[in-house]
Amino acid sequence: MAKRLSVEEAKMATTWAVMVEGDVAKGIQKNFLFNDFVACWSFMSAVALRAEKMDHHPDWTNVYNRLQVTLNTHDAHGVTEKDLQLAAFMDELYQKRTTI
Amino acid sequence: MAKRLSVEEAKMATTWAVMVEGDVAKGIQKNFLFNDFVACWSFMSAVALRAEKMDHHPDWTNVYNRLQVTLNTHDAHGVTEKDLQLAAFMDELYQKRTTI
Repeated sequence: MAKRLSVEEAKMATTWAVMVEGDVAKGIQKNFLFNDFVACWSFMSAVALRAEKMDHHPDWTNVYNRLQVTLNTHDAHGVTEKDLQLAAFMDELYQKRTTI
Repeated sequence: MAKRLSVEEAKMATTWAVMVEGDVAKGIQKNFLFNDFVACWSFMSAVALRAEKMDHHPDWTNVYNRLQVTLNTHDAHGVTEKDLQLAAFMDELYQKRTTI
């Protein structure tokens, strides 16, 4: 099983918001904004394929052109390297996106 | 603009949970459960295409094989015929789904 990161380790490792409960990093969270639903859905579709490939899936809420993503590793009850990997993928994809 | 339904009208018109604030039906909500992420995502993809075609989009949260959907019509500040149409589409699709 992937090792759970400490709060400090998580904060050092990502620009996403670290959700803290007591002294445990329970998850990392970020909001993404797009031009419209098509752009948002295109992004989500690419992430869905990657998530399925990684067997590591986001908790996410979509309202039209807005997307809130929370990542955590259920088995580890916290944040692990897998979350950082998926977060980095999403950040890179968001940076690269074109206006559709 | 589509006419906003009363709480009673909304409750009569759908099996979804009607979210009530004061005497206004603010939205309708339903939880869907699937075998896994692929099945859930397939369902969401079909709904996304329909939503874009209708120009009427759901508020939805997905966690692996679980999906919570809230429908409302922003312009009308409540529930309209458009929400009922999208809800009916989702119910029918969910009934018809195959195990992927």
